[in-house]
Amino acid sequence: MSLLRQFVLWCVAVSCLVLASLASGAERPPNFVIIFADDLGYGDLGCFGHPTIVTPRLDRMASEGMKLTQFYAAAPVCTPSRAALITGRLPPRTGMCGEKSRVLFPNSAGGLPDSEVTIAEALKASGYATACIGKWHLGHLPQYLPNQHGFDFAFGLPYSNDMDRVGTAPRGRAAFLHPQSKFWNVPLLKNGAVIEQPADQTQLTKRYTQEAIKFIDAHQQQPFFLYLPHSMPHVPLFASEDFAGQSRRGLYGDVVEELDWSVGQILDKLRELKLEQNTLVLFTSDNGPWLIQHEQGGSAGLLRDGKGSTWDGGMREPTVAWWPGKIAPGTTSPELTSTLDLFPTLHALAGIPLPQDVVLDGYDISPVLLKNQPSPRETFPYYREYTLMAFRQGPWKLHLLTQDGYGQPQPTRHERPLLFNLDEDPSEVRDVAAEHPEVVAKILQAIEAHQGGMTFAKSQLEERLK
Amino acid sequence: MSLLRQFVLWCVAVSCLVLASLASGAERPPNFVIIFADDLGYGDLGCFGHPTIVTPRLDRMASEGMKLTQFYAAAPVCTPSRAALITGRLPPRTGMCGEKSRVLFPNSAGGLPDSEVTIAEALKASGYATACIGKWHLGHLPQYLPNQHGFDFAFGLPYSNDMDRVGTAPRGRAAFLHPQSKFWNVPLLKNGAVIEQPADQTQLTKRYTQEAIKFIDAHQQQPFFLYLPHSMPHVPLFASEDFAGQSRRGLYGDVVEELDWSVGQILDKLRELKLEQNTLVLFTSDNGPWLIQHEQGGSAGLLRDGKGSTWDGGMREPTVAWWPGKIAPGTTSPELTSTLDLFPTLHALAGIPLPQDVVLDGYDISPVLLKNQPSPRETFPYYREYTLMAFRQGPWKLHLLTQDGYGQPQPTRHERPLLFNLDEDPSEVRDVAAEHPEVVAKILQAIEAHQGGMTFAKSQLEERLK
Repeated sequence: MSLLRQFVLWCVAVSCLVLASLASGAERPPNFVIIFADDLGYGDLGCFGHPTIVTPRLDRMASEGMKLTQFYAAAPVCTPSRAALITGRLPPRTGMCGEKSRVLFPNSAGGLPDSEVTIAEALKASGYATACIGKWHLGHLPQYLPNQHGFDFAFGLPYSNDMDRVGTAPRGRAAFLHPQSKFWNVPLLKNGAVIEQPADQTQLTKRYTQEAIKFIDAHQQQPFFLYLPHSMPHVPLFASEDFAGQSRRGLYGDVVEELDWSVGQILDKLRELKLEQNTLVLFTSDNGPWLIQHEQGGSAGLLRDGKGSTWDGGMREPTVAWWPGKIAPGTTSPELTSTLDLFPTLHALAGIPLPQDVVLDGYDISPVLLKNQPSPRETFPYYREYTLMAFRQGPWKLHLLTQDGYGQPQPTRHERPLLFNLDEDPSEVRDVAAEHPEVVAKILQAIEAHQGGMTFAKSQLEERLK
Repeated sequence: MSLLRQFVLWCVAVSCLVLASLASGAERPPNFVIIFADDLGYGDLGCFGHPTIVTPRLDRMASEGMKLTQFYAAAPVCTPSRAALITGRLPPRTGMCGEKSRVLFPNSAGGLPDSEVTIAEALKASGYATACIGKWHLGHLPQYLPNQHGFDFAFGLPYSNDMDRVGTAPRGRAAFLHPQSKFWNVPLLKNGAVIEQPADQTQLTKRYTQEAIKFIDAHQQQPFFLYLPHSMPHVPLFASEDFAGQSRRGLYGDVVEELDWSVGQILDKLRELKLEQNTLVLFTSDNGPWLIQHEQGGSAGLLRDGKGSTWDGGMREPTVAWWPGKIAPGTTSPELTSTLDLFPTLHALAGIPLPQDVVLDGYDISPVLLKNQPSPRETFPYYREYTLMAFRQGPWKLHLLTQDGYGQPQPTRHERPLLFNLDEDPSEVRDVAAEHPEVVAKILQAIEAHQGGMTFAKSQLEERLK
């Protein structure tokens, strides 16, 4: 064979390899889907131990992927938790937590500052298609909406589904017992425009799912980032006709079982398009169960307390990561991880450098996901609004202040901080501070170091519209 | 072809089919393996929501089989719970519960009466090989041992591993904090003969597993019933050298993770011998977690209370059923089921008629296991010793008396019984008796009907050796 002929054959072979590689998507950055439930408790999925909420699709997702059992939201309520996920920064740094208010309300004038870099902006700049389908709650004035924060496409509610209650609706919890969409005049937005008001809440989960499927279908040839923050199971609870009355757990169970269906639809679509080996899907929740809602609220399982509290039930979330071929099936990681880590992790997986001059509070946890290795995160600060209530280091959690989620008006300051070993005592039952003074001292030092690096931006949650 | 030749060929073909069918075991009655943990709580497995006890083998067993999330032991403590499983009869009927004693002790003179029919006796009479490998606790005098109750082979402890404490051992809970086998002079028996005393408790789980594997290996050609009641995770906790110090949950986690390993060994052996499609394996526990043991005890997850109590945490067990090809993978059944149902269910699956003249308290739940259908069990009585404390009908549970597992000396009698909807409120938080007087009335009627059919045998637990 002549040298020329050998060279031509080599060129053909290499071209074929490259084409095959491109066709298989192996060289393409991975897609990301983050499914974010609202007020879902740690104990509310089958694979996290709920006896009567049946979630076969999430259970299967866990058996094909990884359960993260010590994964934390960065706040025990909605707005700050979402801000932290999307920026990788603690809420006090971004001003996305309140001094008096816990979250943004329809008469709030603030929102996520333009100066903040979101995951969507970073990925979009790198060629990703981006969509936010679901509840935003990071500012509903035009300048704060998802399209202004890096999302090509936005569809959903601007804030919580229990806001804008109309004057003729039942007062207090009564409205939640037999909810009707007309009780809340909450708007459904599409790229900033109101397309329905009040939104038909019975159809929210179904419509979010349909929009998500459409978005995935339309972006088979381009890397995409789909942020899917469901409005459910936040009160008022609504399930579609296919799920209402189906669960043994009552309406709350119906709603969670419809979310389970929705997750199944997304994973099925990814499989159908043969994108599953190039897509990381992460399912989690924004904060713990809203316990004062009784049967309309969820369960933190074996964890203590719920939404609004810095006991673990308020901030540890039922989390499942799925990426066939990349994440080993049927694994469980009890490593310390957080929504704060998603920003740097998605950057790393997409091969994008982190933004300069931005102080991040997260770590690249891809070694946890892809190799079941130790987490680079060694500590976790539990903030309630601007106050550092508790601090975790390894298995240890030190409570400086505690406040329950049942309506305790003022926090209790512990002159002698409480210490729990969460690996051995996840329910925070046995205070072992007296037995481990050296651990208490070490965590107090770590807190000092953390506080030395903290900055506090002016709250975006206190200013009201005139 | 002559008619004769055609007939001969037909005969050959039929014979081949029959032989093939026999060889594949399709005509052989199924094997049964019941793995029974001791004091394991509802929340202590990964697939039932524990964050730091990692149980990949049981999680996989669940994803290949069925989780039973409302499966009850018939008593909140050891001896009566085991008697009920093995006879299908409520403990008060068999006398296997106490008036003052909760369980049998080394100085007890009683045991399971010879008049009782055990699962092992029934299956043995029908050609099954039978083995009891683990903790018996149904009488340790020679006439009460497993070999006298239908087991061909017996290996294990005659009672709990915290009995026979020697005088020189630390007193109280201190002995459990840094346990040594020599603190308890408990004998290890093989077919009734003491082969080691004190038993080396660090090796118990491993040795039970080895004996179980040997038994399965030796009975590939004969249907078998393997009853494997582990001694762990009952205090004192012991793990072998391979597991000690490995779990984040501490010693309790080490012990449960070794049980998980053991389950994996059994399932692997069944697969290796190609017996998995002809073997039903059921994993469960004898009662709830022993909460007064603190970090040496387990967790009931979202359920209320634990061992010794008739709150659900004392009697609802983490249960997984596995039978590839027969039980649909990845299913969850929240149907009402119990250890009491195993006696009639194994009879039905083995094709054996139920014994005549024996009043049974169980139901054939094979439709639940094999077809994910409703359970024939509509009610469940919660007995504490001879006292009916509570009664379940469908989702409803009515408490006539309550007594916690933390040492409450006398039960509280509720003049107005407490009512909970366990499907909607598994944690028994919201008493809804006032809202549902008709349900209370209906259950009181059902209780009357149940009590009309009850018989009470003399206790076997009160008589002491001279």
